[in-house]
Amino acid sequence: MTNDPRLSLFFKPRGVALVGVSQDPSRLGYGLARKMIQSGYKGSVHLVNPKGGSLLNHPVYTDIASVPDPVDLAVLLVPAALTASALEACGKRGIHAVIISSGGFRETGPEGAAYEAECLRVAGQYQIRVIGPNCIGVIDTHLPLDTCFAQLPVSFPGDIALVSHSGAICAALLDWSFGQGFGFSRLVSLGNQADVSETDIFAAIADDPDTRVVTMYLEAISNGRRFVEQGSRVAQEKPVVVYKVGRSVSGQRAAASHTGALACPEYAFQAALRRSGIIQAETMEQMYDWARALASCPLPKGRSVAVLTNAGGPGVIAADHVEINGLHLAKFGDQTMAALKALLPAAASIQNPVDMLASATPEHYVACLRILLEDPGVNSVLVIIPPLPMFPHASVATAVIPVILTSEKPVVVAVLGERLIGEAVERLRIEHIPEYRCPERAVSALAALSQRAETLEKLNAKPVAKKDVHPEKVRSILRDVTPDITGLLPPRAVGEILAAYGISTLSIELATNANEAVKLAHKLGFPVALKIASPEITHKSDVGGVTLDLKDDEAVVTGFKDIVQNVQKALPASQISGVYVQRMAPKGQEVILGAVQDSIFGALVMFGAGGTEVEGLGDTAFALAPLTLEDAEYLLKTTWAGRKLKGFRNLPPADREAVLDALTRLAQLAADFPQLNEIEINPFEVLSEGRGAIGVDYRARWA
Amino acid sequence: MTNDPRLSLFFKPRGVALVGVSQDPSRLGYGLARKMIQSGYKGSVHLVNPKGGSLLNHPVYTDIASVPDPVDLAVLLVPAALTASALEACGKRGIHAVIISSGGFRETGPEGAAYEAECLRVAGQYQIRVIGPNCIGVIDTHLPLDTCFAQLPVSFPGDIALVSHSGAICAALLDWSFGQGFGFSRLVSLGNQADVSETDIFAAIADDPDTRVVTMYLEAISNGRRFVEQGSRVAQEKPVVVYKVGRSVSGQRAAASHTGALACPEYAFQAALRRSGIIQAETMEQMYDWARALASCPLPKGRSVAVLTNAGGPGVIAADHVEINGLHLAKFGDQTMAALKALLPAAASIQNPVDMLASATPEHYVACLRILLEDPGVNSVLVIIPPLPMFPHASVATAVIPVILTSEKPVVVAVLGERLIGEAVERLRIEHIPEYRCPERAVSALAALSQRAETLEKLNAKPVAKKDVHPEKVRSILRDVTPDITGLLPPRAVGEILAAYGISTLSIELATNANEAVKLAHKLGFPVALKIASPEITHKSDVGGVTLDLKDDEAVVTGFKDIVQNVQKALPASQISGVYVQRMAPKGQEVILGAVQDSIFGALVMFGAGGTEVEGLGDTAFALAPLTLEDAEYLLKTTWAGRKLKGFRNLPPADREAVLDALTRLAQLAADFPQLNEIEINPFEVLSEGRGAIGVDYRARWA
Repeated sequence: MTNDPRLSLFFKPRGVALVGVSQDPSRLGYGLARKMIQSGYKGSVHLVNPKGGSLLNHPVYTDIASVPDPVDLAVLLVPAALTASALEACGKRGIHAVIISSGGFRETGPEGAAYEAECLRVAGQYQIRVIGPNCIGVIDTHLPLDTCFAQLPVSFPGDIALVSHSGAICAALLDWSFGQGFGFSRLVSLGNQADVSETDIFAAIADDPDTRVVTMYLEAISNGRRFVEQGSRVAQEKPVVVYKVGRSVSGQRAAASHTGALACPEYAFQAALRRSGIIQAETMEQMYDWARALASCPLPKGRSVAVLTNAGGPGVIAADHVEINGLHLAKFGDQTMAALKALLPAAASIQNPVDMLASATPEHYVACLRILLEDPGVNSVLVIIPPLPMFPHASVATAVIPVILTSEKPVVVAVLGERLIGEAVERLRIEHIPEYRCPERAVSALAALSQRAETLEKLNAKPVAKKDVHPEKVRSILRDVTPDITGLLPPRAVGEILAAYGISTLSIELATNANEAVKLAHKLGFPVALKIASPEITHKSDVGGVTLDLKDDEAVVTGFKDIVQNVQKALPASQISGVYVQRMAPKGQEVILGAVQDSIFGALVMFGAGGTEVEGLGDTAFALAPLTLEDAEYLLKTTWAGRKLKGFRNLPPADREAVLDALTRLAQLAADFPQLNEIEINPFEVLSEGRGAIGVDYRARWA
Repeated sequence: MTNDPRLSLFFKPRGVALVGVSQDPSRLGYGLARKMIQSGYKGSVHLVNPKGGSLLNHPVYTDIASVPDPVDLAVLLVPAALTASALEACGKRGIHAVIISSGGFRETGPEGAAYEAECLRVAGQYQIRVIGPNCIGVIDTHLPLDTCFAQLPVSFPGDIALVSHSGAICAALLDWSFGQGFGFSRLVSLGNQADVSETDIFAAIADDPDTRVVTMYLEAISNGRRFVEQGSRVAQEKPVVVYKVGRSVSGQRAAASHTGALACPEYAFQAALRRSGIIQAETMEQMYDWARALASCPLPKGRSVAVLTNAGGPGVIAADHVEINGLHLAKFGDQTMAALKALLPAAASIQNPVDMLASATPEHYVACLRILLEDPGVNSVLVIIPPLPMFPHASVATAVIPVILTSEKPVVVAVLGERLIGEAVERLRIEHIPEYRCPERAVSALAALSQRAETLEKLNAKPVAKKDVHPEKVRSILRDVTPDITGLLPPRAVGEILAAYGISTLSIELATNANEAVKLAHKLGFPVALKIASPEITHKSDVGGVTLDLKDDEAVVTGFKDIVQNVQKALPASQISGVYVQRMAPKGQEVILGAVQDSIFGALVMFGAGGTEVEGLGDTAFALAPLTLEDAEYLLKTTWAGRKLKGFRNLPPADREAVLDALTRLAQLAADFPQLNEIEINPFEVLSEGRGAIGVDYRARWA
């Protein structure tokens, strides 16, 4: 999957040169050498320092040129001012993969930025791929390889990879993972990303048989569309879970100060993850709760969960969280109920959650778990092991392990407690069975498995590509049109552009005086609406710039004068180019369709409630353009504006199909013409079923 | 605070009789005796078993009557069928506090329920307060006292009390608390609550100098209003955090099967907690993350947080979660910035979050923390200790501890990692400084402190009690009125009732034929609206039962016939009593005001978006009646319908004051007349500022 073969050198070097090692045990350069030598790395370790000599039973070469073969990777830990020349020496030595661990670059100000730029220039000249500077490097626990200078306990070889925009997060997670019972396979700390970014390394890190799940701590995305492309390729093979920070205004500001990250709107990022098939975690704990389950469980065939417990309380907690996480409790078949009834005391609950009561033995757990797994209505199982009055936790864990290991359905275990549960937890961890300290987190992991299963199904969907669209017409319109000072295109041109992609709109004509307005009204047909035409006014109705339902000549003349006066009064300085005349629209459900070009992710489509309240209600959803049919359905399902198209109370069902069709066409238009910075149809009147939908007000802005 | 002095006997008995002890170490009756004797309880322990003899160096009495003084509490662990007679023996012996630990009662079916009822009868006869049956009893780690039969590690003496509807949750938390670094003060497992409920025990458990925070695991509330009353009394003194389960449909069903809990609508429960000043946690972990901070931190004076870190990534996470939790990052004063700048390297971030960079020493931590705490714009501080390249975590923790202990502002610490952080965590725990493994949870604890501080301020607010209301008029109307078959009162009566409490409505008159409708239209004034009058039809417009804006006699006659026909066609079987005539309402912002009598919590007021979309949008909020002014403001602030009363885009500001006034009046009415099961004003037209608001459609239902 890796595009650039040099990137795999970071993970599979035959020899590594460590440049800037030190004899002084208090220096990072000493830590780097010791770590690498002690790590068990099986390739050649070459130490470099101008002073020469030997260190830790290894010769120290005085320069990079003298380093013998094999050497595929260099780690530079030299002062920023000397790094570019060290990089050049690497280039001359034929090294194409370099980790710059030292700091003192862009993160420190203009001088450091100049050093970084010089490194980048040298890297380009010698075709070197650079990770860093200002990073803790790369770890592969299976090779093993550890280029990290810090004296951190390195997690045991595991199956979860990590790509991180923060070195401190890498360090914290390496240590933290011990208490969580998982290990990392590969880990990359990207530092300043002078060259290699999260998008570049994505496929290289995933292209590793020991990695079963890729996790990412991200503060920004460098190239949105490439990230989506790489992400969806990786996600086809392996689950990817992302913890993206800088989601709030405060967080974005902090991320900008930390890594100079460009703010990425949350809606755009989420749309990109949806398209990539990447799962988004809300907290660091959640990312690894999920990753552990994703690394070892089979995927469920649906969202129905069975809960098995020997106590009511934890079962109630689980039931709540099944629903909170968008799963549902399985409804058991008659056979299941009969089998449970035969097995359990009369007072036990054979409904889901199954409460076997405190008298349950390990054998009860096993028998009930088997019964639940056999029920075709059960897609996954949560086993809860609370403190047992009669049996140690470990006896239950030991008993259920073989059933879980041979199950084709995912089973996760909540083992409640701390001191009493050590052995039970240890046994489950040895078998890679995900275990959690509370039902809430165990259920959330089951939800992640469902999300992964559904994501995989969607990943193969192709975006809709309508044939009856006419990009050549749009090109010709765009060639001839003149946008106003704010970049807005004339409404007539926008209508023609939309028509070229098969989206119906109500004609809009410009009148520069009241008489012209009357003539246009006759041409378009009464009743008509008048709307002010001014490049500066976006929200026309806010300034009295709209009048509706004018039924005759006199009304049009008066209306024309009124709205011009209103606007002149409200915004005396505004430039008025006339008044738009439009036939009154038929009434339907009002929605908004829009598209914007995001600076990171490109064309995005927006759907939501139409009218002026769209901002206040926040009832909107976004998807990456072009849209798959599933994306279009998603936009409707996740908004109230979309759901009520099916009808609600006395609101009759509207032409939902027309909306889905228009959304995919608008997305195609936005994807084909990135120079259209912004397109909005608001309101888009959706008539009753089978009667279509029509754009009443619409605008487009030139990039 | 305790109402019933017998309840304090559970926590301060001078002597305890254990009834049903066993010589067989595999029996719970042996565990009970051993636990009590080993627990360090300083009062008298009396063992009882018909076989007599001695056990663990204590004499075994053959019956309860023979137990010598002092004995204030008995724990019964005898078969269900024998429990009532054991209870009777306790009564005769003068014991007024009994824990029935044994199971086999209501939870097992009708036979067990009969045993439980008999116990309750005996308890009433002898004035015994009973905890249980089917519970693990009571623990006081300070006394100490431990009536729990199970061999659980009992947490070290702490300052957090627990009231639990689940014994397994008690057991799990007792063990789990070891890893979390907190201990319990008192703990009550309530079991079947044949007598003592969470509401009864609330004050008794809080009335303990060693308890600083009360936590509750609840599956239901037995007496809503009393819970609120007790809760707000306790919350005046000590923070109370509740984890209420059975919040989802699945969870409610599971809770009903577990403890027979009555479903309690989530909106009612949340309204009750708001009024009580009780904080609601979303997960068990959250409850104790918060409780630990509440037990030891001073309360913040506002929601502004400073974040101090030596690494960017964890700072960005913290910044995000500050905002997600409704807090905000403090904006530092010039003095603070200057002091930080003088202290830190140029590349450090002296903006909030303060990133001191990896070179930060323990002394940097101390100096920066002092600077931040001195800034009057900082209300609380999060200190993050990621893995440090240079210094062990413990050296930083040790350095900041004295600053934190002497601070009048709350400081919480995120110590990231696992193996490297043991000593740092231990030192913080010894000093009762709340520490967390991730910034997310640390920030959430700061938010809980803010919530507590704000709650305390609100707890003294008195509900609005308007003087110009006329309950006697309402009584007289209710005396004379005849509700229809569904309990609905005639609209005119409802209008009069609302008027008696000072709420304006537009008159509604009933016409039984078209001529009458015309007459009424003349009386009320044109234009008018007609609405079908039928006891079976709640949503009139859904069945064509409404026609609006009729301007003359002819329109009224046609309208009358039309809507009667529409309804007869849509619902042929419906009983039509005529057509209501109403003058057309002035247009304003449409909201809904409502009140319901909740079976657990009594009168609740509802506010939201008016019209038919209220259900679909879910834009509603609830509060307990009567309302404080702050409650009324809360209803407006938490709904879009309420927020937009201030105006939005071209929507002019509406008469917000009129809505606040009507809400408090409606609440007063609902609180005064619980026999009005349901009152709804929808739409309540809110006119522009200073012009008031008026109920257009309104209904009330008799209990």
